[in-house]
Amino acid sequence: MRSIIPFAAVDAKTRLASVLDTDERAAFSRAMLDAVVETVIEAGHEPTVLSTAPLDEPTRAASTSVIVDDRPLTTAVNDQLTADSPTLVVMADLPLATADDIHRLTESNADVTLAPGLGGGTNAMVIREPAFRVDYHGASYLDHRAAATDLGATVETVDSRRLATDIDEPDDLAEILIHGDGAARAWLVAAGFELDAGDGRVGVRRR
Amino acid sequence: MRSIIPFAAVDAKTRLASVLDTDERAAFSRAMLDAVVETVIEAGHEPTVLSTAPLDEPTRAASTSVIVDDRPLTTAVNDQLTADSPTLVVMADLPLATADDIHRLTESNADVTLAPGLGGGTNAMVIREPAFRVDYHGASYLDHRAAATDLGATVETVDSRRLATDIDEPDDLAEILIHGDGAARAWLVAAGFELDAGDGRVGVRRR
Repeated sequence: MRSIIPFAAVDAKTRLASVLDTDERAAFSRAMLDAVVETVIEAGHEPTVLSTAPLDEPTRAASTSVIVDDRPLTTAVNDQLTADSPTLVVMADLPLATADDIHRLTESNADVTLAPGLGGGTNAMVIREPAFRVDYHGASYLDHRAAATDLGATVETVDSRRLATDIDEPDDLAEILIHGDGAARAWLVAAGFELDAGDGRVGVRRR
Repeated sequence: MRSIIPFAAVDAKTRLASVLDTDERAAFSRAMLDAVVETVIEAGHEPTVLSTAPLDEPTRAASTSVIVDDRPLTTAVNDQLTADSPTLVVMADLPLATADDIHRLTESNADVTLAPGLGGGTNAMVIREPAFRVDYHGASYLDHRAAATDLGATVETVDSRRLATDIDEPDDLAEILIHGDGAARAWLVAAGFELDAGDGRVGVRRR
């Protein structure tokens, strides 16, 4: 199965700007990408990183190729979909994802299998329907369901907290400190982040 | 298996105060409770609602009993744990939970099976270790793991987005509108809530 990991290489993760400066956001985004690449490889695939710009450093895995495409996410991903192979698309900001989670997606025989993110996004998907095209704008999970149904394609949803947890906002960092164990967690700990248990949901603070 | 659904019946869901007044929060909390009661029954159990005050209206299910205990959540739940039966504890603010999700918890043979919430909470759990006691303060997921390990008990974590999505804050309401289908979603729609797709995660607005 072809596997694509879209990656925003320039000015990434702007919603983390209150806790990380530009260089830190770049380094942290790269740590998350490395975690996802390793997970996809562990699940038995040879991922292609679909990056908006050349990577500063090559990935550690020799089996990983990089395609640079600076067009919007939707356009770039659709250009990678081919009629001759199912395609796995996994976002680069899912450091909690495990190989088991990827298996849950790829084991599904539905024409379109979706792992929704919090807030209506589509964090990972497997596309087996050649006519299907992605559209990541807005509540893409609902749009992807509707698009599949319009094509007469079967749809399945994978219920995974780990795949649902894309890292966009400061509070999301707590999920990595609570549940993570890879490069992204190590990066956060080295940068001085720790859990901050106030009222309600646990957040993060920085030393 | 004994099953407990703790329910805060008085001044509940204060973090929703910016979008729901006191009476609305009470009604919406009750709609969520009803959804969870139905789910637990559908999963084959006879739930006991552990409420901080008498319910205004009885539950629709005759097989559901209500115990009133106005002590703090941790104390009240621990008082319900008995040595002679495993216990399922499911929070009342999980309207996305399905019977399948409950099965994933109860099928586990671990001494303690945890479904973490976003932000480090424990949204649902099955306790088979008689010496185990809950502690819902702070990052309870980590505390529960540590407590189980201290007892030499085995621990398993269920990876479910639906069980992870407790409804505490306005943005959480979007998850119900996107993924829900029961009483809680019907209540929100009747109250005029709809999805609001701006930048980033989809939220809600009220007509």
